[in-house]
Amino acid sequence: MDPIKPQVRSIPAYTLAALETEIKLNQNENPFEVPDDLKQEVLDLAAKRPWGRYPEFVPDEFLGLLADHVGWKREGMLAGNGSNELIQAILSVTCAPGVRVLLCQPTFTLYKLLATVYGAETVETYLRRDDLAFDIPAIVAEIERTQPAVVILNSPNNPTGTNLSLDGWRAICDAAPGLIVADQAYVEFGGDSAIPLLTEYERLIVLRTFSKAGSLAGLRVGYAACDPGIAEQIAKAKLPYNVNFFTIAAASVVLKHQDRFEAIIELLQNERDRVYRRLQTMSGVRVYPSAANYLLFETPLPPDAVFRRVYDHGVLIRNVSKYPMLERALRVSIGKPEENDRFLAALEESLGASADSTEVTA
Amino acid sequence: MDPIKPQVRSIPAYTLAALETEIKLNQNENPFEVPDDLKQEVLDLAAKRPWGRYPEFVPDEFLGLLADHVGWKREGMLAGNGSNELIQAILSVTCAPGVRVLLCQPTFTLYKLLATVYGAETVETYLRRDDLAFDIPAIVAEIERTQPAVVILNSPNNPTGTNLSLDGWRAICDAAPGLIVADQAYVEFGGDSAIPLLTEYERLIVLRTFSKAGSLAGLRVGYAACDPGIAEQIAKAKLPYNVNFFTIAAASVVLKHQDRFEAIIELLQNERDRVYRRLQTMSGVRVYPSAANYLLFETPLPPDAVFRRVYDHGVLIRNVSKYPMLERALRVSIGKPEENDRFLAALEESLGASADSTEVTA
Repeated sequence: MDPIKPQVRSIPAYTLAALETEIKLNQNENPFEVPDDLKQEVLDLAAKRPWGRYPEFVPDEFLGLLADHVGWKREGMLAGNGSNELIQAILSVTCAPGVRVLLCQPTFTLYKLLATVYGAETVETYLRRDDLAFDIPAIVAEIERTQPAVVILNSPNNPTGTNLSLDGWRAICDAAPGLIVADQAYVEFGGDSAIPLLTEYERLIVLRTFSKAGSLAGLRVGYAACDPGIAEQIAKAKLPYNVNFFTIAAASVVLKHQDRFEAIIELLQNERDRVYRRLQTMSGVRVYPSAANYLLFETPLPPDAVFRRVYDHGVLIRNVSKYPMLERALRVSIGKPEENDRFLAALEESLGASADSTEVTA
Repeated sequence: MDPIKPQVRSIPAYTLAALETEIKLNQNENPFEVPDDLKQEVLDLAAKRPWGRYPEFVPDEFLGLLADHVGWKREGMLAGNGSNELIQAILSVTCAPGVRVLLCQPTFTLYKLLATVYGAETVETYLRRDDLAFDIPAIVAEIERTQPAVVILNSPNNPTGTNLSLDGWRAICDAAPGLIVADQAYVEFGGDSAIPLLTEYERLIVLRTFSKAGSLAGLRVGYAACDPGIAEQIAKAKLPYNVNFFTIAAASVVLKHQDRFEAIIELLQNERDRVYRRLQTMSGVRVYPSAANYLLFETPLPPDAVFRRVYDHGVLIRNVSKYPMLERALRVSIGKPEENDRFLAALEESLGASADSTEVTA
């Protein structure tokens, strides 16, 4: 007997090589740290709190802060050890053999991986080939044809940066017979928040995280806002005590000082737009519009070569050419201004060096 | 369409009322805190580490420490956000409709809950009715009859404290056609470690945690030791970056200072044995042998009444009478000596008060 399910055996493991680098622009992290005085506030809380006692079964105060933050009902809020854990819980209460989950490729790889582990069938739609925008009529047609129990879309979409408009969400929610998951891990950097749609669509679940704009990638905390009845079912598959006291303390402090993060977010948005314009000026480079803190771009050279050359200049970006449709693409996270300058210079040299070597060999 | 699976709708949510109390003996926590100087070591590490950067994809150094600690291969170690998360990952790579998971009731409720969410059928065996010991021949017979993909046993068993001997594990491993999960969250307090069996049985997975003896219930960290090939498959269902940097730092510091915890564990063992002997002297009370940091006991009164009366004396214990076979049982965690004294006095008064009131009404 092989106790491991065949669909698990057949999927490759999700891995990421740990490359040392001077400038790290590969994981869409916020390059600006939580300010020192806020860190100290969290460390002081941690020093006082007993470490040997379980977190609360339901972190009421924290869920209340989250509810106030997004303007939704306390009973419709769930906190997770990263929004990944909430994706896992949602898929595990819905997925089974014969159940369909609709995605829109290219997108975050975890949706398909987990739906497959849980035995569901994934239905894959695609961004528009010409501009990588969401193709609403195609998604709606596929929803009507396949009747998926779950539609899971990422907006702004990783790794493309694509935003889905509220009208787009509405068309999809109107067509979907089951749950609609709006993974909005990057929404603070731009794009349309789906939170206002919660009052219109009770099968909509909005996911958010502190890992990106909130500068807490090292601590893992995400949250969901949805109908309280749906939250109750999802909670059944969520492990108890899963968000630890330190993470709750850190996220609570970040929430209470949101104003301190707004200037950082604005700076990153301006930097994204600056890098976008610079990439547009580079010969042969195509860059896609992004509502997130990263940019997807294509160059005349093979992406493996560009990745390696930029890395040799001390800048680590992400080679996303293994994603569907993105055979020529790379992704760069937006860093601090000087980091972005280093990236732009490294890319220009990498592309220029190639032109030279092409001439030499010609 | 109801997108929520019927088996999820039908299970009750796992809940725990948050009762305020002076003395908390309801969650099997270690009542002795991580020493202040070790906490400071962790807080200093946290102050230096960037919070906005993801944890390592695979926490190599930490896994190496764990491997050294238990004496097993680095490639066969997995860390989780609590051992609960590893139980979840193991069940999600194995469970599907038509697959069987064998448990031994009464035991930790999460096994059945997750196996049910993932669509498997649970096969339930039982501890011996007369002494709540593991009934090895009955378990082996049921394994042979039902051919489960997973056998998951808890030793010391929660909530009974029962130990499974190495000979017992061997008989079960010899019979089992699939994975055997040894959840040993409480093993540091007594009972037989299944780690030495890893060299004999490559389908055995041993789970451990820092939440109990390690005094880190508030931070959530557990680990698995198993065959590297099995670890690779389980890792596919484990979320990336799931153990945050603070938790890894805390667990690493606890591991490096294991000697500081040994005296605490010995004190708790002695206290467990002292409370056990005192309970044995109380009229009408039956207490069961325990290899863990808690004791299961029955009294002549209904458990709801005993729970409430002891609580009214300022001591919170656990009413476990809803578990199979435990209709008359309560569980008390072992606290500091003075906390245990308070519990013993509260229980004696609770039982005595009843005798008085019985006389009055007679």
